[in-house]
Amino acid sequence: MHKNFSEETLRNFTKQVFTEMGCSEEHAELATDVLIQADLRGVDSHGVARLSGYYRLCCKGRINTTPNIRIIHETPTTATVDGDSGLGLVVAPFAMKIAIEKAKIYGSGWVSVKNSNHFGIAGYHSLMAVEEDMIGISMTNASPLVAPTYSNERMLGTNPMCYAFPAGNYPPVVVDMATATAANGKLEIAQRAKKQVPEGWIQDKLGNSTTDPDALKNGGSLLPLGSDKDHGSHKGFGLSATVDIFSAVLSGANYGPWVPPFVAFLDPPSDPVGEGIGHFVGAMRVDGFRPIDEFKQHLDNWILTFKNATTVNPNKKVVIPGEPEYLFTQERKQSGIPLVQPVVDDLNQLATTLKINGL
Amino acid sequence: MHKNFSEETLRNFTKQVFTEMGCSEEHAELATDVLIQADLRGVDSHGVARLSGYYRLCCKGRINTTPNIRIIHETPTTATVDGDSGLGLVVAPFAMKIAIEKAKIYGSGWVSVKNSNHFGIAGYHSLMAVEEDMIGISMTNASPLVAPTYSNERMLGTNPMCYAFPAGNYPPVVVDMATATAANGKLEIAQRAKKQVPEGWIQDKLGNSTTDPDALKNGGSLLPLGSDKDHGSHKGFGLSATVDIFSAVLSGANYGPWVPPFVAFLDPPSDPVGEGIGHFVGAMRVDGFRPIDEFKQHLDNWILTFKNATTVNPNKKVVIPGEPEYLFTQERKQSGIPLVQPVVDDLNQLATTLKINGL
Repeated sequence: MHKNFSEETLRNFTKQVFTEMGCSEEHAELATDVLIQADLRGVDSHGVARLSGYYRLCCKGRINTTPNIRIIHETPTTATVDGDSGLGLVVAPFAMKIAIEKAKIYGSGWVSVKNSNHFGIAGYHSLMAVEEDMIGISMTNASPLVAPTYSNERMLGTNPMCYAFPAGNYPPVVVDMATATAANGKLEIAQRAKKQVPEGWIQDKLGNSTTDPDALKNGGSLLPLGSDKDHGSHKGFGLSATVDIFSAVLSGANYGPWVPPFVAFLDPPSDPVGEGIGHFVGAMRVDGFRPIDEFKQHLDNWILTFKNATTVNPNKKVVIPGEPEYLFTQERKQSGIPLVQPVVDDLNQLATTLKINGL
Repeated sequence: MHKNFSEETLRNFTKQVFTEMGCSEEHAELATDVLIQADLRGVDSHGVARLSGYYRLCCKGRINTTPNIRIIHETPTTATVDGDSGLGLVVAPFAMKIAIEKAKIYGSGWVSVKNSNHFGIAGYHSLMAVEEDMIGISMTNASPLVAPTYSNERMLGTNPMCYAFPAGNYPPVVVDMATATAANGKLEIAQRAKKQVPEGWIQDKLGNSTTDPDALKNGGSLLPLGSDKDHGSHKGFGLSATVDIFSAVLSGANYGPWVPPFVAFLDPPSDPVGEGIGHFVGAMRVDGFRPIDEFKQHLDNWILTFKNATTVNPNKKVVIPGEPEYLFTQERKQSGIPLVQPVVDDLNQLATTLKINGL
């Protein structure tokens, strides 16, 4: 059961919510754009469905809607940003803008961010660089749900990393992935549908393999990409560790088990090792390496070659990273963004609380 | 069956081989160091066992032992290097030196490389940056053995990526991983032992799952990290694509199915889209983000925290990326580097060919 809403309707509603939360006009518009792009790109778990979550964190005083986001350390091509507990939806684009400005002058720019909150889809930030004919990189740590190989303790978030490259005639190549085998959103879908999940996604509290989607709620943990040692879960753990170190050990944010939870009903650890959650973003000018037209022409050839690879089932073609999200956007800009009823209900309740018009 | 050799014995032998191949004193020493470090770190598949392979490529004229390695394009923090068909063992450190020099001045440095050959272990190059209290990044594409998700065509190499971070009291964190579920070396071990491999490592020519380690030789392919779509193989494919684009589409090397094979008995594709194989290396000054001592102290805390995580089996502790390689190095520096008999025989045959003393 779902209902379709036009992009414009959802934009207006979302912007009003952020404004009511105390954001400036500019911040409300930016935060809205990050969420709407997630919905347009088909990443429903990271779109307006998260709005109530941000609101609750705000009520708890864990999100500052009038942050003084600032550079606290820098070189010509690197910087550390203090997000002042702001919305990650606003802090991360601020950081990426700095990276892009540095790249314009020096060829590349890299910004590590502390004292931030959930930044939405990684792809949004990387694509800001692509707009400038740059390669965009973005990652963030997140509250601990994933156990390292051999462990049954939740030590890492689903810590996504994203690499985006500008193409010519094709949409950009956007590799935007959680470093766990399955992100939490996929589990929630199985929970709602009361369906078992494949082995290798989660383990129970004791570390036993399970297909029960509720195991995570009952003290279990998600598994790193690779699922088990034999299938390379130490690599998934290594990637997740990389994201954590770039995002938090480098910036001064909380890392590993100290990352504050996204949900407002759980308190952050009382013995923090840093401030807030951390991100890492970067931009590199393509023409710092070769002329942009040459690059795009070869990336188009790369895409075409992979699209035409022989497949086991002729009806299932090779999917270029970023292509499904592009197709979703084309379609949803036309026919609207579908929201499931529980999300609509939740947003309407939020509207009542804030005394604004519902959807 | 194996025999132990001292680091010094293998260094002298290896250097002599590279010298006989026509390398300068300096290049022979550097290439030797890359291979010996692989053996010390326990990555036996990438050490002196590869020497004959390099020699055969040299005989075929595919490796130029007196290359004019040079920058062909640059900005303050980016560069493209033409390896002039040199040994990747020499070309990649040349590129990393440039990245480090740029990072010293501007905070970060990034070099894409074309017209190169196999560069040994990625970890070697990243660790060059760590020596300078920088974060080191290195990746390379490789000849096609891996099929994208849904495909049964070999389109990508095992395309490793490596991230290395300097710690304080602990060895550096080094995430050095093939983006396939299992690297080719693991398959070769199973082939020699005539053992089946776990499902999810390879598929046969038609794309059927198989546990036969010889399936790869018979037209099958390796699977991207994640093994199948349900377990995130599209993420492994995305990572491998990222490595291919950074290393080759950005530099002007061959990408995807056009990457020349490492083995000399197979000819490179007759319709190249670039020159040689490609690498990508980078260095970032840690103190471009926060004081190095602060970073190291927190990375030590990160390492300690993860080492102490609860494990399912109390005898199997969480393994910090780079720790096993560090322990191998400590042990092998003491008791020598073990080589299996077929490798000793192969190296002694090479010695006979080159008219130098065998092992």
